[in-house]
Amino acid sequence: MTQYVFDFASGDATQTDLLGGKGANLAEMTRLGLPVPPGFTITTDACRHYLAEGAVPGALADQVRDHTAALEKAMGRRFGDTADPLLVSVRSGAKVSMPGMMDTVLNVGLNDETVRGFAAVYGDESFAADTYRRLLAMFGQTVLGVDGSLFSRALDEAKKKQGVTADSELTAAVLSELVETYKDIILEETGSPFPQDPHEQLRQATEAVFRSWNGERARVYRKRENIPDDLGTAVNIVAMVFGNRSADSGTGVAFTRDPSTGEQGVWGDYLADAQGEDVVAGIRNTEPLAALEGHDAESYRELLSYMELLEKHYRDVCDIEFTIEEGKLWMLQTRIGKRTPAAAFRVACDLVDEGLITIDEALGRVSGEQLTQLMFPAFDRSNAPAPLAKGVAAAPGAAVGKAVFDPHRAAELAESGEKVVLVRDETNPDDLPGMIAAEGVLTARGGKTSHAAVVARGLGKTCVCGADSLEIGPDSARAADGTVVNEGDVVSLDGGTGEIWTGSIPVTDSPVAQYFEGKLGASSDPLVTAVDRLVRHADESARMEVWANADTGSDARRARRFGARGIGLCRTEHMFLGDRREMVERLILAEPSDREPILDELGRLQESDFAEIFEAMDGLPVVVRLLDPPLHEFLPSLVDVSVKEAVSPSAENADLLRAVRRLHEHNPMLGLRGVRLGIILEGLYSMQVRSIARAAEALRAKGLDPKPEIMVPLVSEASELDVARRAAEKVLEGFDVDVPIGTMVETPRAALTAGRVARFADFFSFGTNDLTQMTWGFSRDDAEGSFFGDYLDLGIFEYSPFAVLDEAGVGALVETAVKTGREANPDLHLGICGEHGGDPQSIAFFDKAGLDYVSCSPYRVPVARLARGQSAVK
Amino acid sequence: MTQYVFDFASGDATQTDLLGGKGANLAEMTRLGLPVPPGFTITTDACRHYLAEGAVPGALADQVRDHTAALEKAMGRRFGDTADPLLVSVRSGAKVSMPGMMDTVLNVGLNDETVRGFAAVYGDESFAADTYRRLLAMFGQTVLGVDGSLFSRALDEAKKKQGVTADSELTAAVLSELVETYKDIILEETGSPFPQDPHEQLRQATEAVFRSWNGERARVYRKRENIPDDLGTAVNIVAMVFGNRSADSGTGVAFTRDPSTGEQGVWGDYLADAQGEDVVAGIRNTEPLAALEGHDAESYRELLSYMELLEKHYRDVCDIEFTIEEGKLWMLQTRIGKRTPAAAFRVACDLVDEGLITIDEALGRVSGEQLTQLMFPAFDRSNAPAPLAKGVAAAPGAAVGKAVFDPHRAAELAESGEKVVLVRDETNPDDLPGMIAAEGVLTARGGKTSHAAVVARGLGKTCVCGADSLEIGPDSARAADGTVVNEGDVVSLDGGTGEIWTGSIPVTDSPVAQYFEGKLGASSDPLVTAVDRLVRHADESARMEVWANADTGSDARRARRFGARGIGLCRTEHMFLGDRREMVERLILAEPSDREPILDELGRLQESDFAEIFEAMDGLPVVVRLLDPPLHEFLPSLVDVSVKEAVSPSAENADLLRAVRRLHEHNPMLGLRGVRLGIILEGLYSMQVRSIARAAEALRAKGLDPKPEIMVPLVSEASELDVARRAAEKVLEGFDVDVPIGTMVETPRAALTAGRVARFADFFSFGTNDLTQMTWGFSRDDAEGSFFGDYLDLGIFEYSPFAVLDEAGVGALVETAVKTGREANPDLHLGICGEHGGDPQSIAFFDKAGLDYVSCSPYRVPVARLARGQSAVK
Repeated sequence: MTQYVFDFASGDATQTDLLGGKGANLAEMTRLGLPVPPGFTITTDACRHYLAEGAVPGALADQVRDHTAALEKAMGRRFGDTADPLLVSVRSGAKVSMPGMMDTVLNVGLNDETVRGFAAVYGDESFAADTYRRLLAMFGQTVLGVDGSLFSRALDEAKKKQGVTADSELTAAVLSELVETYKDIILEETGSPFPQDPHEQLRQATEAVFRSWNGERARVYRKRENIPDDLGTAVNIVAMVFGNRSADSGTGVAFTRDPSTGEQGVWGDYLADAQGEDVVAGIRNTEPLAALEGHDAESYRELLSYMELLEKHYRDVCDIEFTIEEGKLWMLQTRIGKRTPAAAFRVACDLVDEGLITIDEALGRVSGEQLTQLMFPAFDRSNAPAPLAKGVAAAPGAAVGKAVFDPHRAAELAESGEKVVLVRDETNPDDLPGMIAAEGVLTARGGKTSHAAVVARGLGKTCVCGADSLEIGPDSARAADGTVVNEGDVVSLDGGTGEIWTGSIPVTDSPVAQYFEGKLGASSDPLVTAVDRLVRHADESARMEVWANADTGSDARRARRFGARGIGLCRTEHMFLGDRREMVERLILAEPSDREPILDELGRLQESDFAEIFEAMDGLPVVVRLLDPPLHEFLPSLVDVSVKEAVSPSAENADLLRAVRRLHEHNPMLGLRGVRLGIILEGLYSMQVRSIARAAEALRAKGLDPKPEIMVPLVSEASELDVARRAAEKVLEGFDVDVPIGTMVETPRAALTAGRVARFADFFSFGTNDLTQMTWGFSRDDAEGSFFGDYLDLGIFEYSPFAVLDEAGVGALVETAVKTGREANPDLHLGICGEHGGDPQSIAFFDKAGLDYVSCSPYRVPVARLARGQSAVK
Repeated sequence: MTQYVFDFASGDATQTDLLGGKGANLAEMTRLGLPVPPGFTITTDACRHYLAEGAVPGALADQVRDHTAALEKAMGRRFGDTADPLLVSVRSGAKVSMPGMMDTVLNVGLNDETVRGFAAVYGDESFAADTYRRLLAMFGQTVLGVDGSLFSRALDEAKKKQGVTADSELTAAVLSELVETYKDIILEETGSPFPQDPHEQLRQATEAVFRSWNGERARVYRKRENIPDDLGTAVNIVAMVFGNRSADSGTGVAFTRDPSTGEQGVWGDYLADAQGEDVVAGIRNTEPLAALEGHDAESYRELLSYMELLEKHYRDVCDIEFTIEEGKLWMLQTRIGKRTPAAAFRVACDLVDEGLITIDEALGRVSGEQLTQLMFPAFDRSNAPAPLAKGVAAAPGAAVGKAVFDPHRAAELAESGEKVVLVRDETNPDDLPGMIAAEGVLTARGGKTSHAAVVARGLGKTCVCGADSLEIGPDSARAADGTVVNEGDVVSLDGGTGEIWTGSIPVTDSPVAQYFEGKLGASSDPLVTAVDRLVRHADESARMEVWANADTGSDARRARRFGARGIGLCRTEHMFLGDRREMVERLILAEPSDREPILDELGRLQESDFAEIFEAMDGLPVVVRLLDPPLHEFLPSLVDVSVKEAVSPSAENADLLRAVRRLHEHNPMLGLRGVRLGIILEGLYSMQVRSIARAAEALRAKGLDPKPEIMVPLVSEASELDVARRAAEKVLEGFDVDVPIGTMVETPRAALTAGRVARFADFFSFGTNDLTQMTWGFSRDDAEGSFFGDYLDLGIFEYSPFAVLDEAGVGALVETAVKTGREANPDLHLGICGEHGGDPQSIAFFDKAGLDYVSCSPYRVPVARLARGQSAVK
């Protein structure tokens, strides 16, 4: 028979799947001999059974009764004993911590009879009445679904009537009256009296905790945090101890290190004569943990010794809850402490120095996401006012700009040079132009997978969403405190914390970014020292290289400073824009016979573009991708030209319209671009190849060591590469340079036929953006802002496949191409230059797949360096 | 050492790769003891060597000299012998027949000395001089590149001077003078005298034949006929025999059956006292072969006996060339005779009846392409005038319409109800609207892979291209005979033969199509009988079923008549067009809360659509695909609405513009469509599922046996199908119908993850159109008319991957999906519903891949039935 109940003394910290985080750690502390109140855990199995079947497993009742009996024996008290009753708390505890999201019921076991015994045992009638009152309110609200304000209103009335302000000033008589009032409320609201049977209380409270797993709050939280819906929660039944028993009682939380900075030394809060719920509720101000020494030096020393023991045992920062009942310390919870990105790096290194973990383990204690956060500029909070509101931290960064409530208006203002923040109740595809124009996006509705969040992350914009304390209308927003934000009012958004301020909060450069830029030394501050140490260890452990995608000399220089060992993708189309756009337009509109002089002119300009990048990367490879996008991208849009010609017809407009129509494509992503264009438009690729060779030859003459490589885009058939390669080789014949020629593997067919493609390639570079688009059959432009949010909400996607490589589909193609490509050409050099090259989870995949390098945007280079090292030590 | 030369006595018919078709068959006839003039073949190896290196292999000269010596011995004559010289012909002969495309030189071996001996031996000075004259003209033109008109002009002048009209009337003296004139022309034009050394003549003539492989004509022909460029040609050196020797000499061609109708009985042409070249040149009118009996009964009987022997030996129709020299019959060539599609079917069946081949072999003797040709309506040529011109038969059909020279004008006229034929010098993407509007397309330039040809085949339009005898201008066309075609003049195009007429040629229904329509019995005519017999044998032999794609009741009824065993693709989007378009527009523009009544209305209409199809296919499966295209396809175009709003702004136009903009996608093929739309647009798929179930339930109540299946389009992730399937099952719960639910496998990812997708699918249907698009990364709309022609010309494509399944890429995905899908779900039913389902080569692949059925357009059903049977017997 399935065992649904485990005593604290029989489990350990590894059993979080079954016992939840809280239960497993209570068991672990019990095992370690720490003073944990006796108790037992009802497993997540039981919860899942309850959620699936609508009823607890048949075997549960007996198992709970047996464990209750054991608990009674351990405590020397019995449930429902009118003389000396056992009281327990019923606490939720999922595998993954979901603070405040699920329910807890304290003081279970009190009723009209036992409250008298309880009063006698503790010698305190008002304490007993207050404890009963708390049970009734909590049980009524949590288990029976009574509106909680009914209880608090009754309490307020009683205090008013007595002319007192603190609960503790109420007399036993008044509290007993309140108990009656609460029971009446329950009877009135539910039609049934409060259950007097402690076992029935326990049963109902347990099921209520189970149900709270699917409560609105919990479900929303899980979606935001990407926690699976099918874990379920465990329930912990713990003998009650009372921090609100007396002046030498109290309760507190403690961290074994500062979770904000990572500094060594204990850190926490203490509240004398209070229950844990009072700390959470923030009703009274807490004292720093050190104050406990003054209240109860012995308990303090005992606590410190337990904290040291736990940190050594768990080999990480621990986050602890404790209660002191009349001078006796009880450990109520411990878990691995959450920490800021900065603390993560410092703690990891400190633990290495303290001999608790290895440097490899330390590398596993930090994440690329944390390093990313540390590289963003941050708000200088030193003089910042209180935030106006807080929402979901959906896309990192620090955005400051004028609030604008209409997307088109936002685009207009941005066009005129204003920095704007787009503020919307929620966003939809119509908002895209405004989102592109804005520094950041703020919404009142939606979580981490909302349209606003998904699109902002795709665009690299700061985003705070789901700030539901704001009422956002069509032209203003109103905060909970009545503050109104109108169009043009400056707001500041912290995409890393979700905070929102009115006014402009000063922004400070990140010291970590400055370190990577070479502007700060590794020893400049303890955080930078820790980052330096772990990134260097990652570099030393790594197998794969990190290269960067860069189209300009300045990007290439930054990439090199950040540690890139090559440029894996230098796009040439950007070199065709700006003031050269007009030349490209002429090229496109010219008769084939008139193209040569324009190509020559463009070629000379490209030569200097290339020279700058090759010089920046002197001695390191630079992979230049020949022109990829369709030609019409260099012309005005069909809609614009059609409207222009309709409104003011002219021969010139008509000519342009004809050309734009001729080049118009229904699906430009699937049209005449990449190598197709290179083959069809004679002279284009040759011009580019010549410019590359000339630039390289000129630098060599200056004593430099340029290492250009030529990448042919969008090959889907080996013969395309064959044709393009032969044409390029013909041009290169005239130069004394050695230029490897390879291809971007970015169509499924190139991957499927990689064995043949590899015969014409010195290298493959996986273009995972296009490969993802074609493998799934959706384009980023059209899909990300359209249905990705819904897909993430529905669980069809775990992540956007543009953010994290889809291993089952796209990854399978990468593996096929690596295998068959290398078989056909053992010297084939392999890299990846899609945006996945900067995503830690994807980097681990590429490492396993055997690629030689990942290439990512310059700012992601440090993250990629860290991630490929983590992948290597794993 | 490589053997580059083979005596006719040492080869056989299987060696066409090495010896070419002509050489191998000459060897075969020699082996059979037929009177073949002695000779030898220089291999295609030698040709390939020559073409690659620019020189013949070093070993060739000696091998030719040895074989020449052997030939001299066999003939009892020597090369260059002034008394009795050996003369040879030097004839091209590639593996695949390329009639008239390459060069031949006759009478090699004559010079100023040997011509006298030759005259003495034959006792005929004028014959000898004429033979020398012919050598000089042929050698001059073919080998030395002299303009042939110089020789014919000199001949004409001589005849004029003598006052005669026929060559044969010229005297020996005049002919000898002409010989001198010809030699002068050669000296003048080339700077060198005509080579007198017969071995040198032979050497030069051989290389000239090699070079002619890459002549302009030959290359164009190969492109048109899809013949690989790297085959090369063999060269046959054959002892000369002279059909122009005397009145009891002659030459002819013969077929063992009528190559036009397939009727039994010999068929051919005979020309007395002539060389083969005279027949080809059409200078004199030939007599029917039977006339030979009157001229030379013995040779006629001998020829008939050889023809019978050859047909029995080759087990197929033979196409023979022969020459009679002074009553002695010589066999100069045999090959498998080309035949019309009608003849192919009749001959195949007759050969079975004659016991020469098995019925399985007969099935292999006909092609799906031939059956297609037979199903098109054809021109009734009985009273047709001579064609105006002839071009390349690029896309079959019989098109009659007014000639229009401008694509936009063509679209206008078609819009107003006129039938038009688009006539263009050549086409480019601008012509697309005109091509779509036209019955047929006629161009003066380009072959089977030209833009016009590729696009017309894609559109299913009749096309004749490369009619280079027409001068096609911007508003008229001029034929070689001076006829001018202006806009509005009616023209007729036969896309199966390439013929072009002015005026309207009457069109007759194809008896084969009428047979499949059930309007003609199988015994109505010998052709229909043969088609019926082979298609029925194909049916009996086949493993795979043939289903059809049909969206309407009438299409479904036709498909069923044509032999479809189910509907593999019933598209529902067409049901949303026409007068329902307005409803769909309302649906799209409605607030989500207002959609239900519109969906209900659409649902009722769909129910009757489905009922009609289910009834037509009573007892057979009908796979209904839920709505696939993006919504904006049901709205006016962004360009149109933008122009409208710019020209005449109104609130209504602005509203519409906003909606169209909201739904606008950069790449609709990669956007919100298929199952994505079904998931996002609540109620849409449920409405469709409900209509299907209602229609089926209603028919069952009437005692019918409807078998609907539901196909979810564009799934790329198993969860999408899971979500859609569960929603559909929920709707179906309310009905007493059993409806299998499956998916279209049309994204690479669906194929790559088929093992997971199959867990939620009762069937897969491969949507190879989209699968091809996404695997290659090009859309049909954007690619076919843009760069496919160039790609076919460059040999990057052998076929358009939309016409013939790309086995290396798309095929690999199909195989993966079949394997992993069946592993995960052994009951999975597998079919294909892309256009490849009607292509014989692709059908053979699908058969091998193990699919259960192919589904194609109704008109392709007979072709598919034939093809899957051919695949089965192979």
